[in-house]
Amino acid sequence: MNTTAMFPPGQKLPNDSFTGNAFLTALVARDKNNDFTVGSLTYEPNTRSYWHSHPKGQVLIIIDGEGFYQEKGKPARAIKKGDVVIAPENVAHWHGASSTTKMVDIAITNYQGDVQATWLQPVTDEEYNSVQTHK
Amino acid sequence: MNTTAMFPPGQKLPNDSFTGNAFLTALVARDKNNDFTVGSLTYEPNTRSYWHSHPKGQVLIIIDGEGFYQEKGKPARAIKKGDVVIAPENVAHWHGASSTTKMVDIAITNYQGDVQATWLQPVTDEEYNSVQTHK
Repeated sequence: MNTTAMFPPGQKLPNDSFTGNAFLTALVARDKNNDFTVGSLTYEPNTRSYWHSHPKGQVLIIIDGEGFYQEKGKPARAIKKGDVVIAPENVAHWHGASSTTKMVDIAITNYQGDVQATWLQPVTDEEYNSVQTHK
Repeated sequence: MNTTAMFPPGQKLPNDSFTGNAFLTALVARDKNNDFTVGSLTYEPNTRSYWHSHPKGQVLIIIDGEGFYQEKGKPARAIKKGDVVIAPENVAHWHGASSTTKMVDIAITNYQGDVQATWLQPVTDEEYNSVQTHK
């Protein structure tokens, strides 16, 4: 296997929706056939999204590293290269790297109308640190 | 980067739509949010799909190896790890490994009604061998 990174890390994502350093490379734009976008997201260690929800869900395919996915009120799920997460519609959740390892995913994000996500509050350090022991 | 294969190779695909040894690991099933399937396909060297078309197109993300994508009447396009192919609707094409290298992709295949693909004739050895020199 060629061990170079699959995609360039891309552009830094804003810190009003991601805590830490997350980067996006856009791979597929919405068009008449594909009612979604596809992108590769790289989360540096200790980086995570804010809490958010998707009106029509999202698919995450983890292609490198390790991290977490957590839906509100549920235990965090440890995720790693080769795992697939199917985020349901309208469920608050976050995802990100572990505190010590980067995480890279391919995200397929559906549209409902022109909306892909509703952003909520940051994942606090307390929330984030509490899941690391579950790994 | 962890250099283990991202997904298990999965189940062999039938030789009435693929020439050689192609394997599929299903990653995402169609559901109320995702009007597509996602799978990882592994093509051994010298393996390719038959000519076929998709009524609502397909996205291919190449995650390992090298191969070719060719639309009917156009030159073949060499594809490799990190490349993205957006196949339009109702255009006859094929894809597969090169004659000497495997190719692994993630395929996002949209539905139109209950149809994802219309299968046509095999890619002949002459057709397949003629593109190898364009690499």
